[in-house]
Amino acid sequence: MDLYAASVVPMKKMLGNLDRWLEAGLAHAAKRSFDPAVLFTSRLAPDQFPLSRQVQAACDAAKAAAARLTGQEQPKHPDTEQTMDELRARIRTCVAYLDTFAPADFEGADTRLLELPFLEGKVMLGRDYLHEMALPNFYFHVTTAYSILRHNGVELGKRDYIGALSVRDR
Amino acid sequence: MDLYAASVVPMKKMLGNLDRWLEAGLAHAAKRSFDPAVLFTSRLAPDQFPLSRQVQAACDAAKAAAARLTGQEQPKHPDTEQTMDELRARIRTCVAYLDTFAPADFEGADTRLLELPFLEGKVMLGRDYLHEMALPNFYFHVTTAYSILRHNGVELGKRDYIGALSVRDR
Repeated sequence: MDLYAASVVPMKKMLGNLDRWLEAGLAHAAKRSFDPAVLFTSRLAPDQFPLSRQVQAACDAAKAAAARLTGQEQPKHPDTEQTMDELRARIRTCVAYLDTFAPADFEGADTRLLELPFLEGKVMLGRDYLHEMALPNFYFHVTTAYSILRHNGVELGKRDYIGALSVRDR
Repeated sequence: MDLYAASVVPMKKMLGNLDRWLEAGLAHAAKRSFDPAVLFTSRLAPDQFPLSRQVQAACDAAKAAAARLTGQEQPKHPDTEQTMDELRARIRTCVAYLDTFAPADFEGADTRLLELPFLEGKVMLGRDYLHEMALPNFYFHVTTAYSILRHNGVELGKRDYIGALSVRDR
């Protein structure tokens, strides 16, 4: 299994999409003359993370997946963002980190045994971690960020969510 | 790449999780004495699908991924559900369809050229379709269904979203 193609590639692409949704949120706030901080702090349930934390968590999910699958130490990206623009910079920081990986770094990732903080002494195979935890968790935060923006009237649609596709001539 | 392990396995698991969230929604409605139809028709934005359609779309995304990657004709699962219990039955129908697949059916799926209705005459490689379209789209609908339930006060948390993990002894 090529876990690079299954993790870093789609996560980088989706983080680029997420950045464009935040940009659309800023444009929406400007057009409707409200403070973008309303979006930054908006959430779908009182005990669910707001937009800011959803974006930070999406970045952390991508960072953690790449680092864990390749046996690297994760760089610290502290949650210090206070504005939508700073959230967009956080995404760029995460994408720049993902850019440091090459497919060859993922050799053996499939069967690598991962010790994870939430596993209480147990381990997971790299491929199980990717499919059962890393990808669902990443898409959870990305989709929830998208839904918070949609809930607040930002004009986004499914094509913005999916983004560009690698199409070929027949 | 083992596209069976990357598609059918996690999608089946997540559809089982989704079924349990609907069950929790029914329990929440009973406890708070409101009609579960409120959840069935609830949505996060006026022009976004309600819970019912999110569940149907999650099922369709899983069905389409398995069928397309293996070159099979998709069975028709019409959107006739009217209740939460019927949505749960729809999930079971989809999981039963996914149960008909074996890993060997996905041989060559990686580089299979897919003609898809939204590609306007172009094609996509199976692996690109899976990572750029099928998985993000599936998790989009699953997560949005989860968020609609959370938005309506159903007591769910991240562990309910992620579900069981394939952990091993060290």
